[in-house]
Amino acid sequence: MLGNFIYSNPTKLYFGDEAQRHLAEALRPYGHKVLLAYGGGSIKRNGVYDDVRAALAEAGKEVVELEGIMPNPTYEKLMEGVRTVRQHDVDFILAVGGGSTIDYAKALSAAAWYKGDAWQTFWVEQKDPAPDQRILPVGAVLTMAGTGSEMNGGSVITNKEKGMKIGKVFKENLYPRFAVLNPKYTFSLPQRQMVAGIFDTMSHIMEQYFSGDDDCTSDYLAEGLMRSVVAASRVAVKDPLDYEARSNLMWASTWALNTLIAEGKTEDWMVHMIGHAVSAVTDATHGMTLAAVSVAYYRNMAAIAPARFARFAKVVWGIPADGKSDAELASEGIDALGAWIREIGAAPDLSSLGVKGDQLDAIADATIIFRGGYTLLTRDDIMRILRESL
Amino acid sequence: MLGNFIYSNPTKLYFGDEAQRHLAEALRPYGHKVLLAYGGGSIKRNGVYDDVRAALAEAGKEVVELEGIMPNPTYEKLMEGVRTVRQHDVDFILAVGGGSTIDYAKALSAAAWYKGDAWQTFWVEQKDPAPDQRILPVGAVLTMAGTGSEMNGGSVITNKEKGMKIGKVFKENLYPRFAVLNPKYTFSLPQRQMVAGIFDTMSHIMEQYFSGDDDCTSDYLAEGLMRSVVAASRVAVKDPLDYEARSNLMWASTWALNTLIAEGKTEDWMVHMIGHAVSAVTDATHGMTLAAVSVAYYRNMAAIAPARFARFAKVVWGIPADGKSDAELASEGIDALGAWIREIGAAPDLSSLGVKGDQLDAIADATIIFRGGYTLLTRDDIMRILRESL
Repeated sequence: MLGNFIYSNPTKLYFGDEAQRHLAEALRPYGHKVLLAYGGGSIKRNGVYDDVRAALAEAGKEVVELEGIMPNPTYEKLMEGVRTVRQHDVDFILAVGGGSTIDYAKALSAAAWYKGDAWQTFWVEQKDPAPDQRILPVGAVLTMAGTGSEMNGGSVITNKEKGMKIGKVFKENLYPRFAVLNPKYTFSLPQRQMVAGIFDTMSHIMEQYFSGDDDCTSDYLAEGLMRSVVAASRVAVKDPLDYEARSNLMWASTWALNTLIAEGKTEDWMVHMIGHAVSAVTDATHGMTLAAVSVAYYRNMAAIAPARFARFAKVVWGIPADGKSDAELASEGIDALGAWIREIGAAPDLSSLGVKGDQLDAIADATIIFRGGYTLLTRDDIMRILRESL
Repeated sequence: MLGNFIYSNPTKLYFGDEAQRHLAEALRPYGHKVLLAYGGGSIKRNGVYDDVRAALAEAGKEVVELEGIMPNPTYEKLMEGVRTVRQHDVDFILAVGGGSTIDYAKALSAAAWYKGDAWQTFWVEQKDPAPDQRILPVGAVLTMAGTGSEMNGGSVITNKEKGMKIGKVFKENLYPRFAVLNPKYTFSLPQRQMVAGIFDTMSHIMEQYFSGDDDCTSDYLAEGLMRSVVAASRVAVKDPLDYEARSNLMWASTWALNTLIAEGKTEDWMVHMIGHAVSAVTDATHGMTLAAVSVAYYRNMAAIAPARFARFAKVVWGIPADGKSDAELASEGIDALGAWIREIGAAPDLSSLGVKGDQLDAIADATIIFRGGYTLLTRDDIMRILRESL
């Protein structure tokens, strides 16, 4: 835990199977006109929409609806939101959905009253709204665990016209002011989406954990979260309606990416970069693309940082040291990760996502490379990892 | 992770050996007149006072000083603070010190403009300030790790006239708005105080961890924190100037008692109750009284909840299961806790604090008993634990 950092996370979390009962009280301090932002019709089928509308009515809010927010929200859709906000002079944005919807709400908060080119300023140039720019407060009702968007400033937007997908991490004034986390709201999710969310969570933790070799409290917390995710996932894949397992998965996913376990860390994030590039050639779910490349990626990293991977094997997977070398332990740890990926039904490799050998060059070309947790990869390294992931 | 809860922790943390450089910026949003509250002269000897005065000057604040806040802050001293705040119409309270000073600042925030009997309302009746009551924002500069007061609502006040010491946990509007956590600010602390803080931290974690037997993410996080505390403590007791170890200890102590690892838990806190009662007959430091009774207390609890203590042995102390029963593992885990207490130089028993056998009845009489993590103890149980702790 070396270096200097600032921790600030003002998001208030209402957790539990009755969490929505606090929604009206959570909304009350904010303005009269609420933009209710959501994706497709799933929240209308599973009762979440009705709960939310009831809370909005109880709080006496006027509601403007914005539906159709897609899994990778586009800049075009964002501009539709900007027009809606300006037309109705909305006071507050309530996002009901998963990470995409909440990412969208944060983007809209920043873009709604910005006078310049929002895409250029916030995503391309990675600037923040000026202190005197009007931003809209955001709240969230989460319906899918995994992205962590409910308690951070992350906002990934896809600009189809420019062929670019860029993530921006806003400062804490754009974090959701509150999030309603009801594990039962994730019950109607298809199992494959649940599993993708589980692996997304695990990947977030690993991408922060696999960096540095100092003694840092954040790594011990990361190990705790990983052990909790693994334990709960094993229950949830057998019984997706197990409330305890789903609640641990939801809570762990929030804490996996709300800055806590990143404090004092350099972090990695190359698995996410490769996974994003895989998404460019398939329509596979984000979490599955991460799973498909993780074993090969981490086997390559373990060759560079065997001590950290040996620790991962012992602490997260409970593999006895028994006089083994760090390299041996590291290898067994990654075997355990691979076995767990298959056990929960995540994608064990790229072939399972339909990726063919002749697409690997395109994936490598699309991979944004920067220095990860332990090394700066070359394009050849990426190609090797992709071949090993087939 | 069953049950419903609300997580909300707005305290902004500035961490690192340059954290004080943010103090002026942290103070700026608040009013002009700052009450600078601190204890004795130690902060004048180690340079912290000069850093803080420089930041106050940089932020252009007018400063009113209130010194002499004692280790167990008294209601009498609180009333002195109330008079000072009212006389100078202070806008903000900056607490510079350890948990007692920060506890005091929160108490003063609530009491400063309260028109009734603050002791009766906030501590005896455990009420919170009414929404329309003026409270003063509090900031903290931490000089001792252990209590966690820098990021929670806890405020223990001693009323000497009534012979009572009561803790109140205020809501998040009384949490410090920010805390400056510079591990080097703890370097000048005597080793015995450092060790007491380490055990206080460990005890906070154990008192939340040893409750329930469900699968709960909070317990995995607690295990991570305990492992980090144990690892860092082993370095710090040999080299108290090891920055990495002291920084992990400081960070872990904050997260040990800021509500995170309590979410979804019933908690215990009987070790704190017995420790407080021990304080009534000795002048031993809080953390040392906890250490002195923990081994005996937890040995009694392990008889009731062997599975949880077996898990503690395996995960926190790395004891191999090797086909042992839960009871055997639990016993080895508590042995490891006892060995660690001796290793770091914490109090292994009550005799080491000068407590005599004929004082045990008085301690038992002074112990407030409620249902802990696994059982409701009787006075006879307390006496047995005290005898085993001698």
